[in-house]
Amino acid sequence: METFSRLESEVRSYCRGWPTLFTRARGSRVYDHTGRGYLDFFAGAGALNYGHNNPTLKTALLDYLGSDSIVHSLDAATTAKRDFLDTFEEVILKPRGLDYKVQFPGPTGTNAVEAALKLARKVTGRETVISFTNSFHGMTLGALAVTGNSMKRGGAGVPLNHTVTMPFDNYMDGQVPDFLWLRSLLEDSGSGLDRPAAVIVETVQGEGGINVARADWLRGLAELCREHELLLIVDDIQMGCGRTGPFFSFEEAGIVPDIVTLSKSISGYGLPMALTLFKRELDVWEPGEHNGTFRGFNPAFLTATVALNTYWRDDSLERETLAKGQLITERLEAIAAEHAEAGASVRGRGMACGLVLPGEGDARRVCAEAFERGLLMETSGPEDEVAKLLPPLTTSVAEMEEGLDILAESVRAAVRTPQPA
Amino acid sequence: METFSRLESEVRSYCRGWPTLFTRARGSRVYDHTGRGYLDFFAGAGALNYGHNNPTLKTALLDYLGSDSIVHSLDAATTAKRDFLDTFEEVILKPRGLDYKVQFPGPTGTNAVEAALKLARKVTGRETVISFTNSFHGMTLGALAVTGNSMKRGGAGVPLNHTVTMPFDNYMDGQVPDFLWLRSLLEDSGSGLDRPAAVIVETVQGEGGINVARADWLRGLAELCREHELLLIVDDIQMGCGRTGPFFSFEEAGIVPDIVTLSKSISGYGLPMALTLFKRELDVWEPGEHNGTFRGFNPAFLTATVALNTYWRDDSLERETLAKGQLITERLEAIAAEHAEAGASVRGRGMACGLVLPGEGDARRVCAEAFERGLLMETSGPEDEVAKLLPPLTTSVAEMEEGLDILAESVRAAVRTPQPA
Amino acid sequence: METFSRLESEVRSYCRGWPTLFTRARGSRVYDHTGRGYLDFFAGAGALNYGHNNPTLKTALLDYLGSDSIVHSLDAATTAKRDFLDTFEEVILKPRGLDYKVQFPGPTGTNAVEAALKLARKVTGRETVISFTNSFHGMTLGALAVTGNSMKRGGAGVPLNHTVTMPFDNYMDGQVPDFLWLRSLLEDSGSGLDRPAAVIVETVQGEGGINVARADWLRGLAELCREHELLLIVDDIQMGCGRTGPFFSFEEAGIVPDIVTLSKSISGYGLPMALTLFKRELDVWEPGEHNGTFRGFNPAFLTATVALNTYWRDDSLERETLAKGQLITERLEAIAAEHAEAGASVRGRGMACGLVLPGEGDARRVCAEAFERGLLMETSGPEDEVAKLLPPLTTSVAEMEEGLDILAESVRAAVRTPQPA
Amino acid sequence: METFSRLESEVRSYCRGWPTLFTRARGSRVYDHTGRGYLDFFAGAGALNYGHNNPTLKTALLDYLGSDSIVHSLDAATTAKRDFLDTFEEVILKPRGLDYKVQFPGPTGTNAVEAALKLARKVTGRETVISFTNSFHGMTLGALAVTGNSMKRGGAGVPLNHTVTMPFDNYMDGQVPDFLWLRSLLEDSGSGLDRPAAVIVETVQGEGGINVARADWLRGLAELCREHELLLIVDDIQMGCGRTGPFFSFEEAGIVPDIVTLSKSISGYGLPMALTLFKRELDVWEPGEHNGTFRGFNPAFLTATVALNTYWRDDSLERETLAKGQLITERLEAIAAEHAEAGASVRGRGMACGLVLPGEGDARRVCAEAFERGLLMETSGPEDEVAKLLPPLTTSVAEMEEGLDILAESVRAAVRTPQPA
Repeated sequence: METFSRLESEVRSYCRGWPTLFTRARGSRVYDHTGRGYLDFFAGAGALNYGHNNPTLKTALLDYLGSDSIVHSLDAATTAKRDFLDTFEEVILKPRGLDYKVQFPGPTGTNAVEAALKLARKVTGRETVISFTNSFHGMTLGALAVTGNSMKRGGAGVPLNHTVTMPFDNYMDGQVPDFLWLRSLLEDSGSGLDRPAAVIVETVQGEGGINVARADWLRGLAELCREHELLLIVDDIQMGCGRTGPFFSFEEAGIVPDIVTLSKSISGYGLPMALTLFKRELDVWEPGEHNGTFRGFNPAFLTATVALNTYWRDDSLERETLAKGQLITERLEAIAAEHAEAGASVRGRGMACGLVLPGEGDARRVCAEAFERGLLMETSGPEDEVAKLLPPLTTSVAEMEEGLDILAESVRAAVRTPQPA
Repeated sequence: METFSRLESEVRSYCRGWPTLFTRARGSRVYDHTGRGYLDFFAGAGALNYGHNNPTLKTALLDYLGSDSIVHSLDAATTAKRDFLDTFEEVILKPRGLDYKVQFPGPTGTNAVEAALKLARKVTGRETVISFTNSFHGMTLGALAVTGNSMKRGGAGVPLNHTVTMPFDNYMDGQVPDFLWLRSLLEDSGSGLDRPAAVIVETVQGEGGINVARADWLRGLAELCREHELLLIVDDIQMGCGRTGPFFSFEEAGIVPDIVTLSKSISGYGLPMALTLFKRELDVWEPGEHNGTFRGFNPAFLTATVALNTYWRDDSLERETLAKGQLITERLEAIAAEHAEAGASVRGRGMACGLVLPGEGDARRVCAEAFERGLLMETSGPEDEVAKLLPPLTTSVAEMEEGLDILAESVRAAVRTPQPA
Repeated sequence: METFSRLESEVRSYCRGWPTLFTRARGSRVYDHTGRGYLDFFAGAGALNYGHNNPTLKTALLDYLGSDSIVHSLDAATTAKRDFLDTFEEVILKPRGLDYKVQFPGPTGTNAVEAALKLARKVTGRETVISFTNSFHGMTLGALAVTGNSMKRGGAGVPLNHTVTMPFDNYMDGQVPDFLWLRSLLEDSGSGLDRPAAVIVETVQGEGGINVARADWLRGLAELCREHELLLIVDDIQMGCGRTGPFFSFEEAGIVPDIVTLSKSISGYGLPMALTLFKRELDVWEPGEHNGTFRGFNPAFLTATVALNTYWRDDSLERETLAKGQLITERLEAIAAEHAEAGASVRGRGMACGLVLPGEGDARRVCAEAFERGLLMETSGPEDEVAKLLPPLTTSVAEMEEGLDILAESVRAAVRTPQPA
Repeated sequence: METFSRLESEVRSYCRGWPTLFTRARGSRVYDHTGRGYLDFFAGAGALNYGHNNPTLKTALLDYLGSDSIVHSLDAATTAKRDFLDTFEEVILKPRGLDYKVQFPGPTGTNAVEAALKLARKVTGRETVISFTNSFHGMTLGALAVTGNSMKRGGAGVPLNHTVTMPFDNYMDGQVPDFLWLRSLLEDSGSGLDRPAAVIVETVQGEGGINVARADWLRGLAELCREHELLLIVDDIQMGCGRTGPFFSFEEAGIVPDIVTLSKSISGYGLPMALTLFKRELDVWEPGEHNGTFRGFNPAFLTATVALNTYWRDDSLERETLAKGQLITERLEAIAAEHAEAGASVRGRGMACGLVLPGEGDARRVCAEAFERGLLMETSGPEDEVAKLLPPLTTSVAEMEEGLDILAESVRAAVRTPQPA
């Protein structure tokens, strides 16, 4: 580990909480250099929904690479890209009635968000974008400006402008009618809110603490955008690709965003890939107006295509995810009940779940205890007050039970005395 | 090809100039779906310095993936990352006397630039960054603000601030002493230039038209930065990894930048990867202050390590690159001489070369003719007035001659009548 | 009038609603070139609290000018300035226990606001300033950024940044607890609100529609600022100098702002003058860091001194103002009751009063009818839905009744049929 | 003087260099409370071109005020405003062939500049404004962003954006062809300069150190603006109203700016007043889009009218100013020759003159010595290296000689030993 402290920037983070050297992985299990295995309830922050080194995808990937197929192509036309586009249309877009054009920005979430924001501003000719409390959209300047976390914002070194923060669903504990504030601002020409270009929202805020927006709230937001001609951007980077059950997390609410960002699990194998989707009529880009060296990383297109064919041609994965999500929730509720004095509670949708432990440091201690017991989890929320569970969707029920047992023990070990919030 | 026009955003670009479907590639040769081969003098815009599907790297990559090694790890510690760091230190940093810390931002060039800019502003507590005419640093808002191209800047949809553009070397045709303007601004408390945090520069501007900064100019810039305590950022994304001969393009000038960005060919195989390097004392990041999902893409660390071991343990690649660069330059000079009436001229360093054809549309027509004849090249420069050559460094002399023959023919076909600039 | 349309910019405004040529004025009465008199219930938008050409001030001013006393002195020391400072301290600051330093910015309200914002940012090292819905603070870029009106904001031609708008008292009709939203943002490190430098507020929003903040709300705001170490700026440009009764409008709430802006009636004679007051410990200005040509306009210091001596050495003016305010309110309530079907209602504090007429165009028509009948009034509010009354504080009860009679007639003439909002 | 240190902000400046209490003034002579007289070669920073308490203007002003004429009218129509507009058209605009509309912003220079910048951005739909090294345009955020002085810029507390600084005439000592840099940026789509809305320039930079732009340079600038459709704003606040000879300082160059700002001496009596003039076709303001409480300060309109009638109906003042300027220059040249070892030199046009004393602190010491000897002068330039002379234009030749004699002595007293720049 000395290599890392000598050579890698202090910005490194996860290696501090998990002080070991990982070497191999398969499915929901990761192994370190001593051969010790860990159950992975983190899944690359949602980038490994189909598990590590998924065998179906692996076979296809080795074939692809072994046959000297195109790896890197910028935005030239390739067979792998064509196949991905056709499959994405057939398996994902058409069945859901979505007439989206597909943009391949640089292969990271923040690049997809930057493309979305640029397009929204270009289309509308307006600058302001509305984001929500405790949102997370990325680290480059445009995406960081719509991200809530003050430590991360402080890293910008310049003021982050052209954005306005609004209360996410239930932010003020039900004391305020939904959208009363935003609607008031939009309808009042003296409010001081410059007419916005767009709203960007996560349906479930992963980094923000597994804050779940109700379907009603999302529909209200979509309606408000429609009324005021604001573009609705759903950032589905962490919650898309089946994390909450359906392929897109917004399907449950029955809304159709104007722009959607996808990344993390879209390649299905942990290969960098990102997409910005938007309604056909919004495709006002000039050729080359937004570019990037790795926007044509074909192995990712290949595994993405295989993942779509394997997991999304029927609804079995979706049903399993909802069932497993139900299982997790029940176990978490039991844990929370056991620690009611510590203020424990549960949040989540599908297989994006959180155990809220408001006592200072509690959630961090739980994750540390879990690591000791062979379970990888991270915290989230503005005060790291949520122990977050994002297991691979392909985690078996037995593994799930094993991990939740470890979690239950870890909470017992970490949360000894009641600590008020 | 209909798939692309139906489903992919109008932002797509290269597929318009190369209207075919690519399937396989090896070394400097790419093949389309009809089996036709093309010599690739573009090399993924410099991301494929060791050629397509380089066999040494390929073997290692297939082994790595085949053995279920870690693919995706965020910034957890992995064997592949440790090996990369140790090798990078041993093969690259130590022999050059560079005491840099290494940051892994998201795996694209623009992410590396954003990290560099954020760090420079954080360290200095200042906002302004100086960039140069015809610079290219990326498409996310921070990087776009230091990019010169007006079409790309216009895509931002918000004003791009906190930056000041300065003349690149020879921008005003030698009519102005180097740095007279910048130095005047820095030394005059009434100049209106807020004290800058940093200067960001490419040693050779690839997208800007293969504009080559002289070593003297770079030394002058480094000296000016030192005098005024500005951080010097060299964006070596396109010109690093041996493109101009040495591993870092700034080695020739004998300068030591405070911050260096690398991407494109650092993985050596077209796998997305990016690094931000900086002097040890600048490492003021908080843990997690800049993050990103794909900053731990281990297959790229693996191929990067193999590439360093294969190509950079001695100076043979560097010497070959310089020799081939000499060959290209001579051939281009001959072509330029043949088209002196069209104002043709040659620019370049190492294997980053350009044939300047100031007649409107000439360079674009040359590239179109070259494509017809089986050679892939792109234009660069603000008016697309430069036919750019970035062949893989591993291109054989025979392939080089073949490509240059095609180029010579293409110029003859495209540049028929003298067109004054 | 042809001169104005030929030579004066289209930006001119009041001359459109009052299409006559004014020549002379005395007390609350203004005369046009035909000799027709008008009761002035507008008082230079609050700049003439002691009436036009107040005789006590006039005598002193003529003496001053007649004796070749200093007119213009930048910020050199003059007798008139010294006398003003000493009197301001003795008559205003000391009795109220206020230990403020006095800055003389350029002699307009917007200059005073700019100085306040600059100082708040300089002292705290933070950028964000919080303002309120329907606020009005001025037209220069800094002040405009904290102004709510969208038409005026649109005139900036650049995005207005570094500010956040918050709901003014009762903005959401009592549906939301006071400061719930602002407090939530301040207390949540993930809210997306960068830590603010200051809050700027009017106690009664004049341009915004005579929106009156309750004393409780102001105390809550002051307490919130104290808790979170935000500077509290009260913009008392329109509501200070006795408009609401006491000299400062915030006295009633018992709060002590960190920074106060004064202008309009501070000179007492309509002479341009502005002050920025701040707590002694905030005086971190460098000499000359904020300057301006007319910040030493001595005739204004002279009349300001006389006005303080005449009107503020006892509480008689304050008591009269409150009594007249009561009279106005009662008359307005009667008018509103008569036009209940048109949704009429009354707002106000002291002698800043408004008759709300939500029917489209109603308030504007009322003012037009009033002008025809010899009464000058203007509208305010985001939709010009409020007929605003700002009579000179020195208006006699008989004049008040006369004006209110005209107003009652004008409303009857203008608001014929019920018009829902 | 204790009053000032106890009550006035540390921002006060001139009172530090002139530590006495001024009481009366007449013509070019100011008197302090001890009765001591000072020759005023500062003239309110150019606001008193016709001297203190000019008797012709004074008589008219006392009559106006004595007859209860309108003092304060916002932008209502008044006789005084009509008379000013008609006179300004007849005496100034028509004879010079200028078809300008007149805007009355708030009565300070910075307000006039803000209005000019807002209008230029609104008309063009662009944000960037070009200003020049060592420019001074005002202290509010918009005007400050086009001001060069770093100390004053630092007071903003927020980054100053949407502006680009360019070299003023002769900034780089003739080493660079005029406008080579600006022209290069404008003509190169890859330069990084976003297409500007406007250029703002002073013909002679007063605060910047009496830097004089040659007529050729101004014509070149006007031509460049015309070619690239940039609006040309001449800030004539300090150099207009005859300071350089003709009414507008740009007349000598024969250019017609698109927008002109006037303030300081426009009222002629030190009364706050400011104008923004612009070509008729640029008058796209909405009614009330830019407003301000004191934009209708009628006593200033009255004295402005009288000043125009008194001084500008023939060319005698212009001729006298040029002659006196010649006298000053000759005397300054002699002083400079006497102090050649200290690097002394002379700058100026008309009666805006400067003695450059590059030795550190020399110019400040000269002004201090001059004060001791009864002469008021200030320094200017980024390092306060210029002793600036702005005497009232009405200063007699005898007074001029008297003041220049004092100056010569003061330089001898202050600049004892040669100090290299």
